[in-house]
Amino acid sequence: MGNNLLKGKKGIIFGALNDMSIAWKVAERCVEEGATITLSNTPLAIRMGTTEELATKLNAKLIPADATSVEDLECVFDESMEALGGKIDFLLHSIGMSPNVRKKRTYDDLDYNLLNQTLDISAISFHKILQVAYKKNAINDWGSVLALSYGAAQRTMYGYNDMADAKAMLESIARSFGYIYGRAHNVRINTISQSPTVTTAGSGIKGFDSLVDFSERMSPLGNATAAECADYCVVMFSDLTKKVTMQNLFHDGGYSSMGMSYRAMEQYIKSFEGLKDEAGNIILG
Amino acid sequence: MGNNLLKGKKGIIFGALNDMSIAWKVAERCVEEGATITLSNTPLAIRMGTTEELATKLNAKLIPADATSVEDLECVFDESMEALGGKIDFLLHSIGMSPNVRKKRTYDDLDYNLLNQTLDISAISFHKILQVAYKKNAINDWGSVLALSYGAAQRTMYGYNDMADAKAMLESIARSFGYIYGRAHNVRINTISQSPTVTTAGSGIKGFDSLVDFSERMSPLGNATAAECADYCVVMFSDLTKKVTMQNLFHDGGYSSMGMSYRAMEQYIKSFEGLKDEAGNIILG
Amino acid sequence: MGNNLLKGKKGIIFGALNDMSIAWKVAERCVEEGATITLSNTPLAIRMGTTEELATKLNAKLIPADATSVEDLECVFDESMEALGGKIDFLLHSIGMSPNVRKKRTYDDLDYNLLNQTLDISAISFHKILQVAYKKNAINDWGSVLALSYGAAQRTMYGYNDMADAKAMLESIARSFGYIYGRAHNVRINTISQSPTVTTAGSGIKGFDSLVDFSERMSPLGNATAAECADYCVVMFSDLTKKVTMQNLFHDGGYSSMGMSYRAMEQYIKSFEGLKDEAGNIILG
Amino acid sequence: MGNNLLKGKKGIIFGALNDMSIAWKVAERCVEEGATITLSNTPLAIRMGTTEELATKLNAKLIPADATSVEDLECVFDESMEALGGKIDFLLHSIGMSPNVRKKRTYDDLDYNLLNQTLDISAISFHKILQVAYKKNAINDWGSVLALSYGAAQRTMYGYNDMADAKAMLESIARSFGYIYGRAHNVRINTISQSPTVTTAGSGIKGFDSLVDFSERMSPLGNATAAECADYCVVMFSDLTKKVTMQNLFHDGGYSSMGMSYRAMEQYIKSFEGLKDEAGNIILG
Repeated sequence: MGNNLLKGKKGIIFGALNDMSIAWKVAERCVEEGATITLSNTPLAIRMGTTEELATKLNAKLIPADATSVEDLECVFDESMEALGGKIDFLLHSIGMSPNVRKKRTYDDLDYNLLNQTLDISAISFHKILQVAYKKNAINDWGSVLALSYGAAQRTMYGYNDMADAKAMLESIARSFGYIYGRAHNVRINTISQSPTVTTAGSGIKGFDSLVDFSERMSPLGNATAAECADYCVVMFSDLTKKVTMQNLFHDGGYSSMGMSYRAMEQYIKSFEGLKDEAGNIILG
Repeated sequence: MGNNLLKGKKGIIFGALNDMSIAWKVAERCVEEGATITLSNTPLAIRMGTTEELATKLNAKLIPADATSVEDLECVFDESMEALGGKIDFLLHSIGMSPNVRKKRTYDDLDYNLLNQTLDISAISFHKILQVAYKKNAINDWGSVLALSYGAAQRTMYGYNDMADAKAMLESIARSFGYIYGRAHNVRINTISQSPTVTTAGSGIKGFDSLVDFSERMSPLGNATAAECADYCVVMFSDLTKKVTMQNLFHDGGYSSMGMSYRAMEQYIKSFEGLKDEAGNIILG
Repeated sequence: MGNNLLKGKKGIIFGALNDMSIAWKVAERCVEEGATITLSNTPLAIRMGTTEELATKLNAKLIPADATSVEDLECVFDESMEALGGKIDFLLHSIGMSPNVRKKRTYDDLDYNLLNQTLDISAISFHKILQVAYKKNAINDWGSVLALSYGAAQRTMYGYNDMADAKAMLESIARSFGYIYGRAHNVRINTISQSPTVTTAGSGIKGFDSLVDFSERMSPLGNATAAECADYCVVMFSDLTKKVTMQNLFHDGGYSSMGMSYRAMEQYIKSFEGLKDEAGNIILG
Repeated sequence: MGNNLLKGKKGIIFGALNDMSIAWKVAERCVEEGATITLSNTPLAIRMGTTEELATKLNAKLIPADATSVEDLECVFDESMEALGGKIDFLLHSIGMSPNVRKKRTYDDLDYNLLNQTLDISAISFHKILQVAYKKNAINDWGSVLALSYGAAQRTMYGYNDMADAKAMLESIARSFGYIYGRAHNVRINTISQSPTVTTAGSGIKGFDSLVDFSERMSPLGNATAAECADYCVVMFSDLTKKVTMQNLFHDGGYSSMGMSYRAMEQYIKSFEGLKDEAGNIILG
């Protein structure tokens, strides 16, 4: 059913929680394309989600690990290389969480210990993964590493809070380490900036449904789904994209290059109905 | 009333049609800041608008010229240098028009002769002005040149049509000539990307009022007015911004860095009222 | 040898001159991936180059056409659909030429008739291709269109001249038409911004070899080759990248995200040898 | 001597160490333009540098504070408002330091405790300053806040290490808080991305002199100096730039928009002298 794009390749997928997760779809598609993989997530996420089911289905070793712990990450690489019989060819970082958002601390009332956790979980974990891999020389030459990002790294979304700063840092880490790992081992590192996606993580954000609707109407091709993101990850892991590195790749149906679409504006204008004067002019509050 | 920021400086302002024009406000503010200026616009615009009134008020010579004609532009510089008694220190390009938009040719049905006119009027005229000035050595060292642009150069706005491509080219010309004129004479060249502004030009665009409303609600500081743009032009013409060049400067109350504001989303959500099911969930069509 | 990524797909490749051309490699790879294609180039290019050889080898119809002529382009689509037995799924625009560069007119001494030609050949031709396709409804839903661009569209390269402005406009057309064609038929339109590549076209630029060397040393993965670009085009034509549109995709070994590499600086520092004082400090002129 | 651009305005300048510091020049220029200010720096920096001399000269209160301490920052605002007799109108954040760079930990061997310090000092301190100000409502409506950044936030510079990630985060904080503070109190927040500048901080970076030389030759107007940066800060603090917010403003003589200049390439080519074969072709290693 696949195209053998990852035939013989070995990979690690971080962050598959349940079948709504992008990482879940990526894992499935990678295996379909001929890869063998391991999965990793936190012990808590493994308990709360259904990652074990995925591991069984894909015949993939599941390695519990806290991605903020260098020691845990060392185990992930050691056990992955053992399970897969060699070095890694690709890796997905799909990890992000803001305790400030969880605790309803607004951006003008951040708890700085929680901010440190947001950064550690959502951005620095990516550096730790890369540094551990680098020190162990655990990624084959011309390997490919991806992290999932979001457009709030460039343009402020209300309610996205300190995750915006974490994503900006995540994308910077991709560039900074992309240079180092590229020049040393030709490993490429990119981020994919995905449409707002209805996952367990995404659905926590305030007014998320309306945002998804707006984004759908703004994007000429509509929002990108998790399954489509998985396809894109596959090509970015394959040998066909060997010279793409240090990039933030928008996978969003065109949203990032839209200023205003007719469809979104048409909907927006409806919001003023009943707010018109006799001449039909919109009365702005 | 001013701060003498342009004391003793000489400038040319292209494109003041009437007192709604950004160029009109820029002309007024430059004089207020101590500059002497000349004005230029097409013979047709001079007939249709009230530029002569402005010229009288500011004691500025008005030089009719078609900015797509190299000959006419040569006259503008010759007459300006004569009227002002020396070389130019600053220059504003506020010129843009799409015959395709005027003739209601949509972007998938462009008339290519009209497209050439759009480009010639709205983008190439800027190159011609700069090339004429360069060949005449008509701009003093450390002079400052501005052109007005719009965010559609980066992100597509429905209905903005071939003007988007013209603005993208305009901004590119600012960079390309900014390099050449900078290295030769330290002249700096920038574009200002302004909020949608209710001018005679702006009001021709379909659904413009709603766009202005959306932009107002998206921008934390609200849309930038023509008068505020004039202030910004003054500082970019002054000696206090000598090392800023080849930039596209957003002057838009923050719009360009916004993904979604609470206020805009709040308004957007109103558009779904009457479209909710019993449970209060939005029914998406 | 391929992965059947374009099995059953039909495409048109514009701009293959000889076996150094990127378009040549793209054509070969598309066929290798299961596509059937037609080729198009100007009559002059066909006489000067070896496109016919490629056509024979790939069993592809070669359709001479001036891409600035709407009539010629109509023939290209009519004949392609007839030869391929249906609508098009993908298309490559690899067309660019500056008569100003050819005639050694520098950017501060442009001939405006030649500038119009530069724009018409290198940018507007892309709009014409898209508009002709759109009006004929010649591209299947979810089709994919690519044009080749270059980083000078964002950052000025000495000697690249009016091609920089043309590339900026080309990328804008991809966005503008990407919106229109996306919302109507889900066709996606992107540009690939490729490393400087030693092709017949590229080699005309002054100091090109040194630029290629600098770029090679700056890019952690080195410059991207024409063959690698062809691989990237294949994935962008495939169904695995369906939601990527209106993007400018850098395919450059990381160059676009580099400020300065150690290797490039190491080489740069060598230029000062013999320019050091007794203490070994570089003497800057 | 000034233009009264900040007449009657009150400000706080963080980070003036000695007369090479950008913050030092900014403080001087603000006072020259009619402002009254306070200064703040760490107790250590005050001991090592000459900030007290500046305070005396400008008749400005010097408030020692660790900008990573919320308590200290609360004192800075309380004491500033008392000393200045009211709320603040403008503020400069010129704070940055990487303990990893100091301890020669390369980017592939970061100490994560030190990374936390880099982020805390160089980026999170900006959030803390803004959050403290916001909670105290210590900034007047339409106040202006600046932080100094560097181009490594967008494009990787070898040796800049974890400071690149810190600067990326700093710029993100400017956007995120720019939205919040803008919608609530019309306070604008921007970063200025300055040329590499020979300050005490800048001079710590490996190969810094050669980088400054390269940058000088790349920039059509040459590198921006600290004094010129101070001028730019003044206009960004003034009422003439009221609608500019959430922007990263390049102040770099055009560097950020340059791909390659003739002057820089000319110098680069010299590095190959003695590396040519008989035919004069460069021999690439």
